[in-house]
Amino acid sequence: MINTFYKEMTGKESVIRQFFDYSRKRAAELGPDSVLNFSIGNPSVPAPDSATEAMQTLLREEDPVTLHGYSPTLGQPSTKAAIAESLNKRFGMNYKAEHIFPTSGAAGALSHALRAVTKAGDTVITFAPYFPEYIPYVTGTGAKLAVVPADTTSFQINFEKLEELFTENVAAVLINSPNNPSGIVYTTETITRLAELMQRKQEEYGHEIFLITDEPYREIVFEGTDSPFVSSFYDNSICCYSFSKSLSLPGERIGYLAVNPRAVDADKLVPMCGQISRFTGHNCPSSLMQRAIEPVLYETSDLSIYEVNAKLLYEALVKIGYSVVRPGGTFYMFPQSPIPDANEFCWTAAKELGLIIVPGDSFECPGHFRISYCVPTEQIQRAIPLFEELFNRYR
Amino acid sequence: MINTFYKEMTGKESVIRQFFDYSRKRAAELGPDSVLNFSIGNPSVPAPDSATEAMQTLLREEDPVTLHGYSPTLGQPSTKAAIAESLNKRFGMNYKAEHIFPTSGAAGALSHALRAVTKAGDTVITFAPYFPEYIPYVTGTGAKLAVVPADTTSFQINFEKLEELFTENVAAVLINSPNNPSGIVYTTETITRLAELMQRKQEEYGHEIFLITDEPYREIVFEGTDSPFVSSFYDNSICCYSFSKSLSLPGERIGYLAVNPRAVDADKLVPMCGQISRFTGHNCPSSLMQRAIEPVLYETSDLSIYEVNAKLLYEALVKIGYSVVRPGGTFYMFPQSPIPDANEFCWTAAKELGLIIVPGDSFECPGHFRISYCVPTEQIQRAIPLFEELFNRYR
Repeated sequence: MINTFYKEMTGKESVIRQFFDYSRKRAAELGPDSVLNFSIGNPSVPAPDSATEAMQTLLREEDPVTLHGYSPTLGQPSTKAAIAESLNKRFGMNYKAEHIFPTSGAAGALSHALRAVTKAGDTVITFAPYFPEYIPYVTGTGAKLAVVPADTTSFQINFEKLEELFTENVAAVLINSPNNPSGIVYTTETITRLAELMQRKQEEYGHEIFLITDEPYREIVFEGTDSPFVSSFYDNSICCYSFSKSLSLPGERIGYLAVNPRAVDADKLVPMCGQISRFTGHNCPSSLMQRAIEPVLYETSDLSIYEVNAKLLYEALVKIGYSVVRPGGTFYMFPQSPIPDANEFCWTAAKELGLIIVPGDSFECPGHFRISYCVPTEQIQRAIPLFEELFNRYR
Repeated sequence: MINTFYKEMTGKESVIRQFFDYSRKRAAELGPDSVLNFSIGNPSVPAPDSATEAMQTLLREEDPVTLHGYSPTLGQPSTKAAIAESLNKRFGMNYKAEHIFPTSGAAGALSHALRAVTKAGDTVITFAPYFPEYIPYVTGTGAKLAVVPADTTSFQINFEKLEELFTENVAAVLINSPNNPSGIVYTTETITRLAELMQRKQEEYGHEIFLITDEPYREIVFEGTDSPFVSSFYDNSICCYSFSKSLSLPGERIGYLAVNPRAVDADKLVPMCGQISRFTGHNCPSSLMQRAIEPVLYETSDLSIYEVNAKLLYEALVKIGYSVVRPGGTFYMFPQSPIPDANEFCWTAAKELGLIIVPGDSFECPGHFRISYCVPTEQIQRAIPLFEELFNRYR
């Protein structure tokens, strides 16, 4: 019999999707120049040539039966070892191959990590503003999501509110730094304080509380930004990574989770992920993609355009009069809406100026809007006068 | 807190895995020639050159931002349309692109299909012998698996037992034809009778009952075998397919599900799968792989070796005295063990002769053993005297 839970979801379009659809409709009606789309988080720079070459070399030189054969359930051993080594070299960790589980991007990593360290009825804490897909990732395990309200002055952690939300049902804390949608990177001070608080809560409640770190934007951090490797601050941690943004391969669904070697049951968590896959029908990411990322683990796409765009846009918005916390990384910025209703603000921007931005309500942070600036710099330049016109309407 | 359900599973190795591990240990100790491994279902023939060329052409000619960009949630439109067209041409169906959902192989297809048409507490019926991963696929949805015992004389359906197992809680029936492990293909007569019985049960219970067809071996059918396209016999059906065996791409995790256009809510089921993915963190298969299979939908690897091996092995086993139902396809055969305890029989084969075969107990069909003959023909020739020696021990 048709499952009514999923069936009822199909009618409901997300707000982000509504803006996206409007932008397509407008472009079709008024021409592509009538739209400046800042709603999408899709990398705008190509994968590095070295990544393409790695795929081509494998296709040319490797025996196809081996290359396209089943990956071992827990991932390609050589890929796992290479990822562990790269993390150890860069961040002074002690990962072994057995702590690495290749996944279908960060989505796969988060879903596995959450299932591994929660059970039905547990609570997972996250922080506004947050990626709305955290809701199905967390509720899909049977756990509940509790959200710490944003500190909108800095988008670092609101520790008083975090402390208030803690109960003994909390099995995990989920953070995303560098952050979508704020663009903010948690500082060493923030991470130290979070680790201390969680350590204290572990002792108070007498059970482990896992820190799950969602890090797809780890490689997109701007000059001068303090960007600590979170797992080195807290033992019971699982790092969830994706190559979607760093290598511009979002459609290839390749990422991993890395279990902190000092975590409780560190040797069990990856085999547990192998079991979890059996229940979700997920299995490993593409064998070709696992092998292809091995030689390019120390490389990225040319991410410099995101920093150029961030600087240009941030300075222009501040000059116009917008209140905006300077992003430390990603390709997102999260200014305050000049009127309390960011939804109304964004629809006005879309319908009157063709400026497609999305309201913060989708990220449980009303009164703000997200600009995705993974676009050609020329698009930023064209948009600045429109952001000014928009601001002046509400002056 | 660590999830104890998954943690407790990690210690337990499957029987198939134990045989696999033994074969590796034996090969390491006594040399590779000491082992003839018939335990693995991994294609032994390479992907067709046209598939490799399709990947290479895309990597060389397509804009990498587009090629590796996010796939739409419900799959690449051109891929979906091409799959629908190929099924319509070959099987006289009326699929549209919107009925096709690209998945991570048949595992992804089955997991989505099962979640779409069951809810917690429902029953899903399948038929022994069956692929043991059906247990996590079904229980992962919250449903229960009920198993119809095998008709070991033909490995077609035991309809009396099926009728006995039916209750109004049955939401779906899951079949696998051509079958792993028996190698048998359900005949037109079997499928017609199954469709009639399910239609009658739908009317009796007043709700739809879905037929989910697991078809990764669809293209491996031997000459003269009656091999009907199941979905054309029953409206409420979802066909789950994988390119793992037909194109020898198991590691690339590419397959699809096809919702029968005449099914209840046929237009809703693929959008529901898009919602289901959000909860399991699965998302789409690789963008490159979706695009790469488009031009090779009418092709396969050179599958002829499986038929050569089947004939050679079947005739030799029958001559020796084994009781075995002739396979109509796949690369499996499922003879009766000369002694009731197939487990003991298979361990004797492994330890005394280095012949690695797996007991039917794993497929809920004791007293039989599975031979995977996706191996070089020369390996079959070397194995025949060993199968004879083994048979004579128990004479």
